Amino acid sequence: MRCVGIDLGGTAIKAGAVTPAGEILARGSRATGLEKGAAHVLDTIAELARELGAQGGLGLGVPGLVDHARGRIESCPNLKVMERLPLREELARRLSFDPARIVLENDANAAAAGEHWLGTGRGERDLLLVTLGTGVGGGLILDGKLYVGRGGMAGEIGHVVVEPGGRACGCGAKGCVETLASATAAARRARELGLPRGNPGDLVELARLARASDGPERELLLAVGRDLGYALATVVSLLDVRTFVIGGGFGAATDVLAPGVLAGIRARSYGERLADVRGRPALLGADAGWIGAAAPLAR
Amino acid sequence: MRCVGIDLGGTAIKAGAVTPAGEILARGSRATGLEKGAAHVLDTIAELARELGAQGGLGLGVPGLVDHARGRIESCPNLKVMERLPLREELARRLSFDPARIVLENDANAAAAGEHWLGTGRGERDLLLVTLGTGVGGGLILDGKLYVGRGGMAGEIGHVVVEPGGRACGCGAKGCVETLASATAAARRARELGLPRGNPGDLVELARLARASDGPERELLLAVGRDLGYALATVVSLLDVRTFVIGGGFGAATDVLAPGVLAGIRARSYGERLADVRGRPALLGADAGWIGAAAPLAR
Repeated sequence: MRCVGIDLGGTAIKAGAVTPAGEILARGSRATGLEKGAAHVLDTIAELARELGAQGGLGLGVPGLVDHARGRIESCPNLKVMERLPLREELARRLSFDPARIVLENDANAAAAGEHWLGTGRGERDLLLVTLGTGVGGGLILDGKLYVGRGGMAGEIGHVVVEPGGRACGCGAKGCVETLASATAAARRARELGLPRGNPGDLVELARLARASDGPERELLLAVGRDLGYALATVVSLLDVRTFVIGGGFGAATDVLAPGVLAGIRARSYGERLADVRGRPALLGADAGWIGAAAPLAR
Repeated sequence: MRCVGIDLGGTAIKAGAVTPAGEILARGSRATGLEKGAAHVLDTIAELARELGAQGGLGLGVPGLVDHARGRIESCPNLKVMERLPLREELARRLSFDPARIVLENDANAAAAGEHWLGTGRGERDLLLVTLGTGVGGGLILDGKLYVGRGGMAGEIGHVVVEPGGRACGCGAKGCVETLASATAAARRARELGLPRGNPGDLVELARLARASDGPERELLLAVGRDLGYALATVVSLLDVRTFVIGGGFGAATDVLAPGVLAGIRARSYGERLADVRGRPALLGADAGWIGAAAPLAR
C-alpha cells in the first residue's frame, strides 16, 4: 500500500509516498502558485496525489489551525485563500476518495508525527518537535500519539513567554520565545551584534564559526539556545517530556544550540528530571511534514 | 459496589467510599501518626479500608512521586518513612487483596481525577487542577483522562518560572509560581504589606476584605492571581487547556483571585483561545483526594 502525504506551504507543496512499514517510495513537489487562486492549489494537490499513486486516501499538512470536524483550515495567515474552504470535500471530489480518508493536520503537528514515526523520535514515548523558522512552531507526541488538544492548537511552544515585558510578539504578548529564538529572531540578534563579520545575520556562517572556535558567535548561539531552553523547561515541568527534536531551517544549528538549550532547561525546571533531557536535531528535514501527514494512513 | 479511596497526608489520613455511579456512601479519617513509624501508618490505612467496606480493591493518594510499576512511593518529602516501602504489597497482604487492585497515585493527580469525576470538572474534556497550599500543586486531565506522564510527574505547574531571576524556590530555580502564588507565598506577600491590618498574613480575612471593597487587599489578590495566571498561560499555549480548577486551602479565595488569573493568562498567551478560558473553584474540598484515588476502581 502507498500512503501519500502532502505538505502544503506558502511557496511550495512537498509530497511523497511511503509504505505502512516506513519505506519511502517516491517524492514530488510543485510551486504552490497561490496567486492563481484556491482552485488551482486544489488541482495541484490532487495532481500530485495521483502522480504519487495515492490509493483511496491522502494526508495533508497545512500551515494553520485545522478544524478537524469540518475538514478545513480555520485560519492560515500565509494561505488566506484557503481559509474556510471545504478542503476535505473538494479534494475527495477531485480524487473520487471517501472524504473520511482525507486527513488534515497542522504542519508542525504533522512534522512531529513524521519525526516520531520515521525520524529522530522513533520509539520515543513522548517528545516535542520544535521548528525554528520564521516563527517557532511545535508539535507534541504524548504517550506515543500526536496530541493536538481540544481546539487543535496544542504544542504552541512559540508563544510561551520567557522574557516578561520583552519584545512585542505578533501574537499580542511580549517576550515570547519566538521573539528570541526563531531563525528570524536569531538573525536579528546577529545583525545587532554585527555577526558574523562581513555578512551580519547569515545563520549558516554564524553556526560554522560557532563550531570552529569559542568566540562571540558561539556565545550568541549559547544565548539563543538558552532562551529556547527556558520555554522547553515549562514542557519538562508540565508534561514530564524529556526529548526535544529541533527542526526547521535553523534546526541545522542544533549541535551548537544544544548546550544553551540544556542550560536553559536546567535553570528553569525541576531538578530531578534533568538527567535524561535531550535536545536532538530533526532527521527528516523537509520530508517530516509530508511523512507525518501520511502517517495516519499507515495505521 | 463500594470504591474506597484513601488520601494519605503528613498529618491526617482522609478516606471514603463511593459507588461507581458517584454516590458518596461514607467518610472516615485518622491522624497519620508518622511518629509511630511506617508499620503503624500501613495498619491505619488497612483499618480505615476495612471500616469503609473496601471490596477487593483500594485507591491511595500520596503526597509524593509515585513509582507506578513498583507500587511504591519513590520520593515523598513529607512522609520520608514511607519512601521506597513496598506499599502496594504491604497493603495487599494486610487486606488479602490482589496487589493489582491497590492503585497508587500522586495526591494532586488524584484530586484532579476527583474534581473531574464528581466535582467542578465534571464533563470537561481537559482541565488543570491547581492546588494552592504550602506549595502549588497540579494535576492534569487531558482528553478525559488523568495524564501523569512518563515519570508520573506531569502537571507540576508549581515550578513554571513566571518571574525570571525572582525569589529562590525550593526546587532550585528562581521565580517559580510557587514562590508567588501559593498560600504560603500569598501570606508572606500580605505580611510584607501589613495586610490585613491587625493580623497581617491572615488569608481568610484578606479575602473577605478584598470581596468587601476595592482597597489594597483586593489589589494584592489581583497581583497574586495575575502571577498564577502567568503560569497558566503556558498551559493554554502548550496544551490548549482552557479550564482551570483552583483548589487547596487558598482556593477558597478563587472568586477574588479569578480576575487577576484571567488577566495574567491574557497577558501571556495566544489571543484567539481566550474567550472561553475559565478559572473555577474546586468543589470537593478535602474530599477530592480520596474520591480521585477511588476513581480508577469505578471503571
